[in-house]
Amino acid sequence: MEAIARANRAPAHSYGADLWTDGLQKTLSDWFETQVRAFPLVSGTAANSLALASVCPGFGGVVAHAQSHIQCDECGAPEFFTGGAKLILADGEGAKLTPNSVKGALVPYQASFHQVQPRALSLTQATEMGRSYTPDEIGALTETARAHQLVVHMDGARFANALAFLGCAPADISWRAGVDILCLGATKNGAMAAECLIYFKPSQAENLPFLMKRAGHTLSKLRFVSAQLEAFITTGVWQRNALHANRLARKIGNAASALLLQPVEANEVFLRLSAAERSSLRAAGAEFYDWGVESARFVTAWNSDEAEVDRLIAILPSKL
Amino acid sequence: MEAIARANRAPAHSYGADLWTDGLQKTLSDWFETQVRAFPLVSGTAANSLALASVCPGFGGVVAHAQSHIQCDECGAPEFFTGGAKLILADGEGAKLTPNSVKGALVPYQASFHQVQPRALSLTQATEMGRSYTPDEIGALTETARAHQLVVHMDGARFANALAFLGCAPADISWRAGVDILCLGATKNGAMAAECLIYFKPSQAENLPFLMKRAGHTLSKLRFVSAQLEAFITTGVWQRNALHANRLARKIGNAASALLLQPVEANEVFLRLSAAERSSLRAAGAEFYDWGVESARFVTAWNSDEAEVDRLIAILPSKL
Amino acid sequence: MEAIARANRAPAHSYGADLWTDGLQKTLSDWFETQVRAFPLVSGTAANSLALASVCPGFGGVVAHAQSHIQCDECGAPEFFTGGAKLILADGEGAKLTPNSVKGALVPYQASFHQVQPRALSLTQATEMGRSYTPDEIGALTETARAHQLVVHMDGARFANALAFLGCAPADISWRAGVDILCLGATKNGAMAAECLIYFKPSQAENLPFLMKRAGHTLSKLRFVSAQLEAFITTGVWQRNALHANRLARKIGNAASALLLQPVEANEVFLRLSAAERSSLRAAGAEFYDWGVESARFVTAWNSDEAEVDRLIAILPSKL
Amino acid sequence: MEAIARANRAPAHSYGADLWTDGLQKTLSDWFETQVRAFPLVSGTAANSLALASVCPGFGGVVAHAQSHIQCDECGAPEFFTGGAKLILADGEGAKLTPNSVKGALVPYQASFHQVQPRALSLTQATEMGRSYTPDEIGALTETARAHQLVVHMDGARFANALAFLGCAPADISWRAGVDILCLGATKNGAMAAECLIYFKPSQAENLPFLMKRAGHTLSKLRFVSAQLEAFITTGVWQRNALHANRLARKIGNAASALLLQPVEANEVFLRLSAAERSSLRAAGAEFYDWGVESARFVTAWNSDEAEVDRLIAILPSKL
Repeated sequence: MEAIARANRAPAHSYGADLWTDGLQKTLSDWFETQVRAFPLVSGTAANSLALASVCPGFGGVVAHAQSHIQCDECGAPEFFTGGAKLILADGEGAKLTPNSVKGALVPYQASFHQVQPRALSLTQATEMGRSYTPDEIGALTETARAHQLVVHMDGARFANALAFLGCAPADISWRAGVDILCLGATKNGAMAAECLIYFKPSQAENLPFLMKRAGHTLSKLRFVSAQLEAFITTGVWQRNALHANRLARKIGNAASALLLQPVEANEVFLRLSAAERSSLRAAGAEFYDWGVESARFVTAWNSDEAEVDRLIAILPSKL
Repeated sequence: MEAIARANRAPAHSYGADLWTDGLQKTLSDWFETQVRAFPLVSGTAANSLALASVCPGFGGVVAHAQSHIQCDECGAPEFFTGGAKLILADGEGAKLTPNSVKGALVPYQASFHQVQPRALSLTQATEMGRSYTPDEIGALTETARAHQLVVHMDGARFANALAFLGCAPADISWRAGVDILCLGATKNGAMAAECLIYFKPSQAENLPFLMKRAGHTLSKLRFVSAQLEAFITTGVWQRNALHANRLARKIGNAASALLLQPVEANEVFLRLSAAERSSLRAAGAEFYDWGVESARFVTAWNSDEAEVDRLIAILPSKL
Repeated sequence: MEAIARANRAPAHSYGADLWTDGLQKTLSDWFETQVRAFPLVSGTAANSLALASVCPGFGGVVAHAQSHIQCDECGAPEFFTGGAKLILADGEGAKLTPNSVKGALVPYQASFHQVQPRALSLTQATEMGRSYTPDEIGALTETARAHQLVVHMDGARFANALAFLGCAPADISWRAGVDILCLGATKNGAMAAECLIYFKPSQAENLPFLMKRAGHTLSKLRFVSAQLEAFITTGVWQRNALHANRLARKIGNAASALLLQPVEANEVFLRLSAAERSSLRAAGAEFYDWGVESARFVTAWNSDEAEVDRLIAILPSKL
Repeated sequence: MEAIARANRAPAHSYGADLWTDGLQKTLSDWFETQVRAFPLVSGTAANSLALASVCPGFGGVVAHAQSHIQCDECGAPEFFTGGAKLILADGEGAKLTPNSVKGALVPYQASFHQVQPRALSLTQATEMGRSYTPDEIGALTETARAHQLVVHMDGARFANALAFLGCAPADISWRAGVDILCLGATKNGAMAAECLIYFKPSQAENLPFLMKRAGHTLSKLRFVSAQLEAFITTGVWQRNALHANRLARKIGNAASALLLQPVEANEVFLRLSAAERSSLRAAGAEFYDWGVESARFVTAWNSDEAEVDRLIAILPSKL
């Protein structure tokens, strides 16, 4: 908020030719310990889809987990931005891909005009099931990708949460592990509307300014987004917020370990809960998502109140 | 061939405003025992994709079998024509969908802007595994489709083979069983290049002429295609050819029953054959497709030579 | 700014299911004296393109001025969102369309599959040349549109400036004059990033939520945009800002009347200036756009400093 | 016809892996005196659009004459295949572009993300007004194209007519004059349905097989098209047919020189004829197209009957 207000004080050039956006390139390059090219955006859906469209043609394919956000929750945005590329779905426990699941998914795709041509691999950090890929796991996946000439995209809507969980450097779970393009999310971690599309190989971003503009994602007053991201990184708020959310998620997980369906490795908790149990919880004021017919997803946030978490824990079935 | 030559003899108006194309409407309406609107085309891929594009927007979804031709072998044509609609994949033995597999595939798709909106169900008759849906099976599937407001498309590249196998009327496995749009293939059954997109509810074809033209599928000398289809139906060649191909397929299947992976219900035979066995067969001159790592697909055609089929049977492992 | 800060204070539901977005429907319905359906957005390019995509298929056409923003400055966004619709270009003095120029542009488009089918008319208020359409002019254009079954879209990036210039009611230059969809811009008039897509016939917006989502224009924290628009309207800031910018533009125009190429009817001034004159002005610190080889465009803003405007006037060639 | 029948006699591999299609590469390479890569197709609209899509992204632009077929008569096919590229319209007498008209059309397109990026120039030989570009005219245009990094496409639906008129070598009005991609039409010159997309720089065709397949333009029995094209070139039928049509067109033009609006340089004749005169002609059995309100277009064909042409000449107003 304060960062936005500061960006509001002085007149500035429009369309990203401003000091805030310039500074952000430097800030992120420092943070990632390599030269990056960064494009601030207001939408994670757009960030993911633009990333894919910049490296995958309409006749291409993108390997992604069957439960990934780009497959399940973006109303076909990747297909829209790419001109109809196909998501090639793979499986894996905890919504995590593995080298073998990726290889298996690629089997039917020949180097023939009868099939779409796989061009990208999309990973989600942390995954839809709140699981964090380790640097080694990412490395093994990107090695598989390289062997199939796939560019590696990472949907990092919860990148900060994974990073806080893993306790490693940002580079360790991105370019150093073979990731080419990262969509770094800040909105889910406290920002107003700030995502950042980060290219570790700037040449892959060659067409991006055109793709962005024609999709209405080139904001004239981009400095307001850049300022949020700048503050997000430099003040350490990304870490403070992520650690807070992760800690509360783990607290729930620890308290309900008998119901726990997934290790808690970020800010999401998946619990086995019957329909009746979920009804009771909701009646008692708890908010969560149904996940299939037998379980529920709890998401903690940067601003979750620990007292509320404690109240939730107090009414969980495991405590009865 | 003769039909094409006849169509060549007199000058004619272009773009389908010709006697052959007019006559075809009548011929097909008679054959299907209902008024249809028919669009001759030269490509089955185009026929399927145009059908889907006429009823499914870019933000829509099409339920199809995971092994269907539109998913596996058309280089993303449905996505291209629809502007990026998503194929929602369902399973089923013999590449056949079932009401339950369709319902299961639809579960994740809510009436929410987060998800693509299912708009069509695509069936393949006969299936990619050479299986034929019975009228009752189709009826059950189209009932499920109706319950979810899905238009029903049938990829009938091997419609004639299924029809010949089932021995029913064309209407019984199309509109009378709830199919809205049929892509009737003749190319695989002997024609030079002739497919026909048939609407049983003409209002659904309202935008089709525009979709066809802008995809380059409005032929100026359409009469040559129409003439093939007309002859295909009226001379009974569809049936003669399909019965021939089916009979030879069944002959292979009967001879190799120990290896048979699927009932033979059209003109395809799937046999369990090791890599070594396939190599031997190929060395002996047999032509077929690998199907996964442990089996092979044999396709008989309208013009397959029975002597060749007998030679194949003689060298199949079951005979050793 | 204050409105944004207030929206930040309390937790809220995401994706527009918040009090701010609900309230905005009411505020705008009051302002326009009719029930509207409003969609807050952060991009004018997206607003225009989504509006067109909601009413024009890929095989459609949109009549627009050859100098319009959607044709010249959006990198093909209308074509991207619509799936390849064609902009049908018409002329008119001051970047204003006329019924005759629209009719003339439509002549080549027959009701035939050989041509794209015109489906929308796009007007810009105020125009790219800073001209404002009067209610009567709009009425005549929308009547022409109706006669050709065209939906009427208005790019209102400078709607507030036109409104302030004309001194009429918002309804008079929108729905009451026959406009169906208005893209109301606030960004150019002081907001951080706030545009609003307003449907006067809500049924035309049926598919919009899906089109928005798949283009990455469904913000999770939409309340921050809604809050800006709410404040923009209810506090009268739209008018204060527009009147200020218009007054300064008129001041320049009056001072340089000998050079004036267009009547000043909003916040833009077009002056005949040679390359040498423009160089001198720039050397003296003036900022403006080249407009062709012999003229320049000056844009005043809600926050332009009158002293700076006076300095500009002092150095204009007409004053030499 | 005979060529098709021959292609029908023996079994053959599908999807262009046949002797006819292989042979065609050689035949066309000989004819053009350079190594070409040729793709037989059944539709000129598809040929043009695929050519453009292979070299122009969605954010690109294609400079074309305002009266060109790709702009006026293909229902937006170029926009569909390219994913929404913009046709940048230029003028020129006789539907012919000139270096100056091309340069003028390009002025508004900056190397900025605000504008689509021009990537191709499309010429039509012979033009929509029946005019033929000379080798020098083409050379000057392609030089202009090179200076702006534009790939040069030629819509050669009437290439044979232009070639017969000019009396030069095929290379002289294609690659030797700087054309990169030629859509060679045979359908308008006697074939059943045969067009050929010819790349003089094969690397530009890299993605074409995928673009073709996903648009339904990869025919399984391609040999029937290839055989037509092969016969078209090797038997000299292209020339015989074109010379015949051109001669009859010139005969009309000579007879009606007082009404002639364009030099007759191919197989089209444009005559100034009032509505009343056109009615009289039609009443007397003549067939032609209205061209604006004051003129008519007469097209002669490879199979036009000279006696019919003479009857037309006898009733033309100039003869009254």
